[in-house]
Amino acid sequence: MPDVSPTRWHLAHTTWFFETFVLAKFVANFVPFHAGYDYLFNSYYNTVGEQFPRSQRGLLSRPTVDEVFAYRHATDQRLQEFLTDCDSETFTQAAGIIELGLHHEQQHQELILTDIKHVLSRNPLYPTYQHAQQSQTTPVAPFDWLDYDEPLAQIGHNGPKFAFDNESPRHRVLIPERQLASRLVTNAEYLEFIEDEVYRRPELWLSAGWTIITEQQWRAPLYWVQEGSEWMHFTLAGLQPLAGAEPVSHVSYFEADAFARWAGARLPTEAEWEVAASDLAVEGNFADDGAYHPAALPQDSAGLQQMFGDAWEWTSSPYTAYPGYAPPRGALGEYNGKFMCNQYVLRGGSYATSRSHIRATYRNFFPPEARWQFSGLRLAR
Amino acid sequence: MPDVSPTRWHLAHTTWFFETFVLAKFVANFVPFHAGYDYLFNSYYNTVGEQFPRSQRGLLSRPTVDEVFAYRHATDQRLQEFLTDCDSETFTQAAGIIELGLHHEQQHQELILTDIKHVLSRNPLYPTYQHAQQSQTTPVAPFDWLDYDEPLAQIGHNGPKFAFDNESPRHRVLIPERQLASRLVTNAEYLEFIEDEVYRRPELWLSAGWTIITEQQWRAPLYWVQEGSEWMHFTLAGLQPLAGAEPVSHVSYFEADAFARWAGARLPTEAEWEVAASDLAVEGNFADDGAYHPAALPQDSAGLQQMFGDAWEWTSSPYTAYPGYAPPRGALGEYNGKFMCNQYVLRGGSYATSRSHIRATYRNFFPPEARWQFSGLRLAR
Amino acid sequence: MPDVSPTRWHLAHTTWFFETFVLAKFVANFVPFHAGYDYLFNSYYNTVGEQFPRSQRGLLSRPTVDEVFAYRHATDQRLQEFLTDCDSETFTQAAGIIELGLHHEQQHQELILTDIKHVLSRNPLYPTYQHAQQSQTTPVAPFDWLDYDEPLAQIGHNGPKFAFDNESPRHRVLIPERQLASRLVTNAEYLEFIEDEVYRRPELWLSAGWTIITEQQWRAPLYWVQEGSEWMHFTLAGLQPLAGAEPVSHVSYFEADAFARWAGARLPTEAEWEVAASDLAVEGNFADDGAYHPAALPQDSAGLQQMFGDAWEWTSSPYTAYPGYAPPRGALGEYNGKFMCNQYVLRGGSYATSRSHIRATYRNFFPPEARWQFSGLRLAR
Amino acid sequence: MPDVSPTRWHLAHTTWFFETFVLAKFVANFVPFHAGYDYLFNSYYNTVGEQFPRSQRGLLSRPTVDEVFAYRHATDQRLQEFLTDCDSETFTQAAGIIELGLHHEQQHQELILTDIKHVLSRNPLYPTYQHAQQSQTTPVAPFDWLDYDEPLAQIGHNGPKFAFDNESPRHRVLIPERQLASRLVTNAEYLEFIEDEVYRRPELWLSAGWTIITEQQWRAPLYWVQEGSEWMHFTLAGLQPLAGAEPVSHVSYFEADAFARWAGARLPTEAEWEVAASDLAVEGNFADDGAYHPAALPQDSAGLQQMFGDAWEWTSSPYTAYPGYAPPRGALGEYNGKFMCNQYVLRGGSYATSRSHIRATYRNFFPPEARWQFSGLRLAR
Repeated sequence: MPDVSPTRWHLAHTTWFFETFVLAKFVANFVPFHAGYDYLFNSYYNTVGEQFPRSQRGLLSRPTVDEVFAYRHATDQRLQEFLTDCDSETFTQAAGIIELGLHHEQQHQELILTDIKHVLSRNPLYPTYQHAQQSQTTPVAPFDWLDYDEPLAQIGHNGPKFAFDNESPRHRVLIPERQLASRLVTNAEYLEFIEDEVYRRPELWLSAGWTIITEQQWRAPLYWVQEGSEWMHFTLAGLQPLAGAEPVSHVSYFEADAFARWAGARLPTEAEWEVAASDLAVEGNFADDGAYHPAALPQDSAGLQQMFGDAWEWTSSPYTAYPGYAPPRGALGEYNGKFMCNQYVLRGGSYATSRSHIRATYRNFFPPEARWQFSGLRLAR
Repeated sequence: MPDVSPTRWHLAHTTWFFETFVLAKFVANFVPFHAGYDYLFNSYYNTVGEQFPRSQRGLLSRPTVDEVFAYRHATDQRLQEFLTDCDSETFTQAAGIIELGLHHEQQHQELILTDIKHVLSRNPLYPTYQHAQQSQTTPVAPFDWLDYDEPLAQIGHNGPKFAFDNESPRHRVLIPERQLASRLVTNAEYLEFIEDEVYRRPELWLSAGWTIITEQQWRAPLYWVQEGSEWMHFTLAGLQPLAGAEPVSHVSYFEADAFARWAGARLPTEAEWEVAASDLAVEGNFADDGAYHPAALPQDSAGLQQMFGDAWEWTSSPYTAYPGYAPPRGALGEYNGKFMCNQYVLRGGSYATSRSHIRATYRNFFPPEARWQFSGLRLAR
Repeated sequence: MPDVSPTRWHLAHTTWFFETFVLAKFVANFVPFHAGYDYLFNSYYNTVGEQFPRSQRGLLSRPTVDEVFAYRHATDQRLQEFLTDCDSETFTQAAGIIELGLHHEQQHQELILTDIKHVLSRNPLYPTYQHAQQSQTTPVAPFDWLDYDEPLAQIGHNGPKFAFDNESPRHRVLIPERQLASRLVTNAEYLEFIEDEVYRRPELWLSAGWTIITEQQWRAPLYWVQEGSEWMHFTLAGLQPLAGAEPVSHVSYFEADAFARWAGARLPTEAEWEVAASDLAVEGNFADDGAYHPAALPQDSAGLQQMFGDAWEWTSSPYTAYPGYAPPRGALGEYNGKFMCNQYVLRGGSYATSRSHIRATYRNFFPPEARWQFSGLRLAR
Repeated sequence: MPDVSPTRWHLAHTTWFFETFVLAKFVANFVPFHAGYDYLFNSYYNTVGEQFPRSQRGLLSRPTVDEVFAYRHATDQRLQEFLTDCDSETFTQAAGIIELGLHHEQQHQELILTDIKHVLSRNPLYPTYQHAQQSQTTPVAPFDWLDYDEPLAQIGHNGPKFAFDNESPRHRVLIPERQLASRLVTNAEYLEFIEDEVYRRPELWLSAGWTIITEQQWRAPLYWVQEGSEWMHFTLAGLQPLAGAEPVSHVSYFEADAFARWAGARLPTEAEWEVAASDLAVEGNFADDGAYHPAALPQDSAGLQQMFGDAWEWTSSPYTAYPGYAPPRGALGEYNGKFMCNQYVLRGGSYATSRSHIRATYRNFFPPEARWQFSGLRLAR
């Protein structure tokens, strides 16, 4: 799987980020920790230099885990020295990049779990990352349709708090009347879609989705395994009976879109999602809670639920620039803007996201065929 | 090139369209012309049945050209008989599909030229499809920036005239102030972009574009050939010296997007384009004129030029459903809707489009890497 | 299918062979018929120059059939003029190459049929190349085992008659006692192998063969088609009921080898085959007979049968150089020697071979996975 | 690199070999150590069951190194108990398989070094496996041609000592007069071949070799690196200046064959090699010596040198069955026989082979494009 990196690589890369964009830029007579690391741990910054091929990161048996930790500790120490010593003007310049580096690290913390889950899933021994928690077995109540009718709204980031460049500028949008489902689609609901043989019926699928389903023989979300007549799914606690009340995850955009069509609905646009989320508190099932698994909704829940945490929500919005968007100058301009092509926006974070990382304006993005992310869906119409 | 089909196949496919969607549906005791043609000449209608693989159409030495013409003439005659004999209620039902079939045929008439050009271009003998016309050698005047400031507008089709389903429903859009270039980008302007070594500099490209440029060693538009220090381009009149005054064509979305960024501008959205085009007459250099080549703009041109004909214009808009869009029921619902993923909208038609086929609301679409279409660009900001 | 070339290309290539290796070499002030043909119609002679990619020959819609015939007629005429005018020393030098060119042309005459059959077979209409002849329906008698015990023999070509360079030098070989089957394996016998489920049992296959069977889902020889419970095979007379009495063909080396193992036997070595064939007359079912199909053996046949014609016989011999072999100097040294790797020797010719082309020392060769040749097998032990 | 396995996998696989072919067969009420290991650690025995894909072995982060050692120790102990307890008839049956298992383990001990070298070589940090020893800098003396004229000889294994099944039966061979070079080809000699631009001249290459050279841009043996005008090579002691006096290794059959042709010679057949080696003592530079690198020949060497150890010698012999060869029944019949296709025989062992593992009749085999093995060459004519 070419998109998956070893944990060790993630740790070295986030270290490299601070070394390259803070130390190398602001520290006089900077000498890199190791001359070869720039090539190995640069992810995709062409402006910085060439990169070791992503698909071969798994081959790197050196530097060892110990060596990467040494790199990390040395870089942490150099950063602390720099922050202690620098004048206030330098500090002001560096602070924004350091803040970016911290949010960048949170993104990789989620990716570490995403990638570990994928690697373990390919192992026929189905290894366990942590012990399972009790699953809720009570079925979840049917969802409600919540009404939204405000036609003119604003979306996007504004103000002094941190946000990525792709969340700006804040701008007006025009949105027709619409309804949003009160919660995420569950495994039990997704199972009905499977049992209705939709994976074998082309008429509900995008053409590109049908091609990939046919070629790769998709019959269920990634990590679902049918053993006889019983459905199991691979989790960070190993192979477990499918829990119907929990939100479905590890579906591609193609599957989310086909499910919505089958259900007589559609996916929300990112503007619809953001307007609905904008006055909610950022609460939910996050990495901070340590469950590392989507949680079933209590039966007595009311109102708009599960907007944050549990599973990233596919929207119907291709990932494009907001009107007037301009990436920052220099290498950090490569962070987001150059990926605005053939990807779809996901919103709200997952059970592997840090609570302090997510917000209503946050735009995640993946290609429509991606399934190894913690991605689910909510209906709109 | 898996996307290119033989001329004979296009002719048989457009015939099959009428046979399948009109005759088979409305004629009592319908018997197909040939039991095997449904499989061979169905392009992508999964609801109708399985399809012979697109990439293998070039292998079909049977039916011969004569047999395909016999199929065509028989089908034309059956259609005429049907139209003569049917009652007025049936006529009303069939008329819309026949009209769709005629517009469908116009699309394939353009594709025939597109595909012939590609096949001839791969032949090192550079064969000629028709004799060359004199190229204008006077350089074209610099373009003007034309202002648009109307923030609320409507786009999309409405009314009794023919349009494809993807042009509906007509709906309101919110567009910030903007400027459009008065004409298409020329070969001479594109040559400056090449000479500025942009094909070797990653910072101006979308990431997916940079990958394809690197892998496939793109250095110029498709069909441009450098012989020593001179640039030539392959045309339907064979290999010709590059004509600087003519609009550039055969660029991908990636190249159009990078050119715009290099020029300090951007591509227009499809809404910006349509609003500007909506009160223009459909005039320009079309297939009806027989030049089969983009035409240089006269030096004294003023106002918004070349909006129709010459070259399809890449917009920055991913090809998505308009709010409230629903495809027709049945097989014809597969015509447009299922392709709304990983494609970009192009507007305005080309020198290979029929004049009666194009309109301001018309949405063409291709993947961002497509270059064998007659695709150029206009700047916005 | 990248190995298949259009008929037009074969005709142009054999013409190019005479033009390049005779006219260009011996005619003063030689001017090529067309400057671009060297690149297009050179098959694999790196010493002569670069070649148009084999897999793209099907794309060449130019030169047209008429233009290729004009090339052929002009080249024939120039050859005749050259032969009329040249002095006897030049004639002696040229004669060997012209003779090679004639045998080369016979090889391509067989390949034309091979390639036409493949192209037609991929067409779901199953077109007919010529009308079918009556198949023999009487089962063929069981084969006999014929004994050979001469341990020291000679194989290879010697003497004044034409042979390809790879048939030399004649040399001694040491062959243990052995038996050869009196005739080729039939379709009926091969059907038993299929019905014994050998295509699903790995233990009888070479590892590389099992890989390709699994990947490409081989279940029968190329061109066999199962319709319900009945087996058909595609022939140059279209799709026909499988004729059990006829020799099997279109099997790969892997299938021939596995069949022999299943039958408790093995394939003969090329030395075993040649020693047995060396005193037989060259008689059999050839292209000259116009059947274009393997023929069933009469029931009263006795002795060693079907050694020539009907189907090429896979031997167990990798295609290697005879001891002391040296290819000719210059481009014609590329004719045979450079292919001596990862191929197996086939012997005896097929129903598409010219009678005057084949002989006991003749070595044909193809990769072990090749099935579109007219290739069958005979058992040894 | 799909052929390379992690060290941990090799250790588990050789353990599995003893467990499967000894314990499972002979121990009553056998229970496997772990139910999942049969699938994970079966290399290619289809008769035993399906196998985890070779190319994905690198993904297996479980079982851990500790778990594999536990598997090993438990299996060793069970084997010892079995050997202590079994009756003498059972012992006789098991002894041959245990002996095979020990030789099998020696093969994997060499492969562990081969694979470690490859993985480290792909790391741009060029890690070191062990410290370098001093290279001999004195040029090696020119080689001698040694004469052999015995035309009838015997090759192959006979007698009570261990040999693999593919070394039998011993049989007569007919070999014309020939000469063998007295030592292996050196790096210095190979460098002349490179400097004569042979990698850019098609006429000396097998066609399949030229294809791979062109596609993969081979310009030197695997692991050679040109830094400015200086040649380095990657070794188990890291990146080192190229040592001209040492035998060349990590060349493919294609390169060995082209080198021989360029030198006006050829590769020996395996019979030529074996006859020459048959009365030599098994002495040379082996894994037992711990150099893990080819050794330069002392200047005063005389007679046939370096036949054992240093580098495997490519022969011109395709890997085929000896006359009368039959693999053992059952799964162990898959050890050698099924690979007799599209591979070439190598002889004599390398610096990573155990001295007790090699003998004159030993037949190693690899595909002609393989370069990650410790493979070199000796000339014949």
